[in-house]
Amino acid sequence: MCELLGMSANVPTDICFSFSGLIQRGGNTGPHRDGWGITFYEGKGFRTFKDPKPSSQSKIAELVQNYPIKSCAVVSHIRQANRGQVNLENTHPFTRELWGRYWTFAHNGQLSDYQELETGRFRPVGETDSELSFCWLLHQLESKFPEPPQDMVAMFRYVAQCCESLKKLGVYNMMLSDGEYVMTFCTNHLYWITRRAPFGKASLLDEDITINFQEETTPNDVVSVIATQPLTGNETWHRMKPGEYNLFHFGEMIESNVDALVDVKFAEVKPKSQAPTESL
Amino acid sequence: MCELLGMSANVPTDICFSFSGLIQRGGNTGPHRDGWGITFYEGKGFRTFKDPKPSSQSKIAELVQNYPIKSCAVVSHIRQANRGQVNLENTHPFTRELWGRYWTFAHNGQLSDYQELETGRFRPVGETDSELSFCWLLHQLESKFPEPPQDMVAMFRYVAQCCESLKKLGVYNMMLSDGEYVMTFCTNHLYWITRRAPFGKASLLDEDITINFQEETTPNDVVSVIATQPLTGNETWHRMKPGEYNLFHFGEMIESNVDALVDVKFAEVKPKSQAPTESL
Repeated sequence: MCELLGMSANVPTDICFSFSGLIQRGGNTGPHRDGWGITFYEGKGFRTFKDPKPSSQSKIAELVQNYPIKSCAVVSHIRQANRGQVNLENTHPFTRELWGRYWTFAHNGQLSDYQELETGRFRPVGETDSELSFCWLLHQLESKFPEPPQDMVAMFRYVAQCCESLKKLGVYNMMLSDGEYVMTFCTNHLYWITRRAPFGKASLLDEDITINFQEETTPNDVVSVIATQPLTGNETWHRMKPGEYNLFHFGEMIESNVDALVDVKFAEVKPKSQAPTESL
Repeated sequence: MCELLGMSANVPTDICFSFSGLIQRGGNTGPHRDGWGITFYEGKGFRTFKDPKPSSQSKIAELVQNYPIKSCAVVSHIRQANRGQVNLENTHPFTRELWGRYWTFAHNGQLSDYQELETGRFRPVGETDSELSFCWLLHQLESKFPEPPQDMVAMFRYVAQCCESLKKLGVYNMMLSDGEYVMTFCTNHLYWITRRAPFGKASLLDEDITINFQEETTPNDVVSVIATQPLTGNETWHRMKPGEYNLFHFGEMIESNVDALVDVKFAEVKPKSQAPTESL
């Protein structure tokens, strides 16, 4: 399995704090040693940092952790390989162009009998079920919307329907972004949190780092973070249900296919033995 | 205008030395302040480092300069904007997938009346003539070779023909790679050099750095470097002619559309005032 991390924000925001927690799980507090990647959108452009090395030992991850790149949409992934070798072409996220936009995708899970999925002109380069399913999704989208769709929300709903079909082939937790929207689909492990004023402090579960968001933000900032497991121990993360689809737009969750969202009991989260910091 | 840097090698080789010279021209010894990028292939996979900031002031360029990433095919670019704003989506190189391979492209020059070029399903994301011409090239290729071509050399010859047409629209110095081949097309400024045993020392023109390749290589290494302007002062770089097309494959130039290649007179290159190191 792997771990996913995503962010949607209404103002360009850096993800250094959350990323610092995530990369510890890449070979240190977690077993996800088989590479990592992170894609930052800036306007319509993006940049991706990738390494097939464990994130906890990666010089490039160190740069990303210490060099604040501000973005409104981020997709990140640390890998524990199941399908496909450990190499760069199999390292998430994957980015392709459709309708004159760059689409970035990352997946956590494993599919069976995926080889039959028809990907049309979007050919996978690596051997992962993840990249192949992404190519299949893009092929489905281009077939249904030969021209850029006007109603993006309807388009994402269609992606969610496609994910529902993929779910029948196995575990399919995914994130998809075009730099403006961040979409998630969950089959088992995915949590989200939206931070807004009044901001407080938060402490990472995987490293002794506490941040006071009040010092880092303005009262109008709205930032949502999505992760395979909660990254902080003193905040309430919402657990996504199996089959749940969510769409984030500049920080706000603008729709979801379920009404009631299950809250994470603090007990469900395993904080480090350190004394918890002031709770929000 | 901009500057291009490319490398083709028969064993994974780092480009730190040449890149160190190039990035000085990004706002320091040269006027190319409008961003930079570099793509390293590793097998079928690739990673790109990009920054809209001047390379001479970029933290990410500093990492690339000091962290040796070994690759058999590299394409790099520093930008002085003429078409399109200074932002990430307009920063070269550009990478797209075709035939299940990633294709990476960078361009130096300027085109007129390029808006009419038909790009089919390869839609540009940014506003540059460069990205649009790349999309047009891919569209031409996919139209001529709907399936992956068996004869890659013939395919690159076709790219060269397309470049010949683009040359009619302006200045079109370009580099194209799929990680195995590095192709170049020249309309005015492009130089190349192939280094092989016996290796000697080389000194950068843009920075006081001298390297002894003998200490960095094995006798079987073959490495070709292509650049808009020679990067070293004590080696003989070959100047490409207008309309010249060259194809490099794992370090060796395997074909060219001209027989006689013009050598650069040492005088044409402006070495720094420093004493030249031992010549090869």
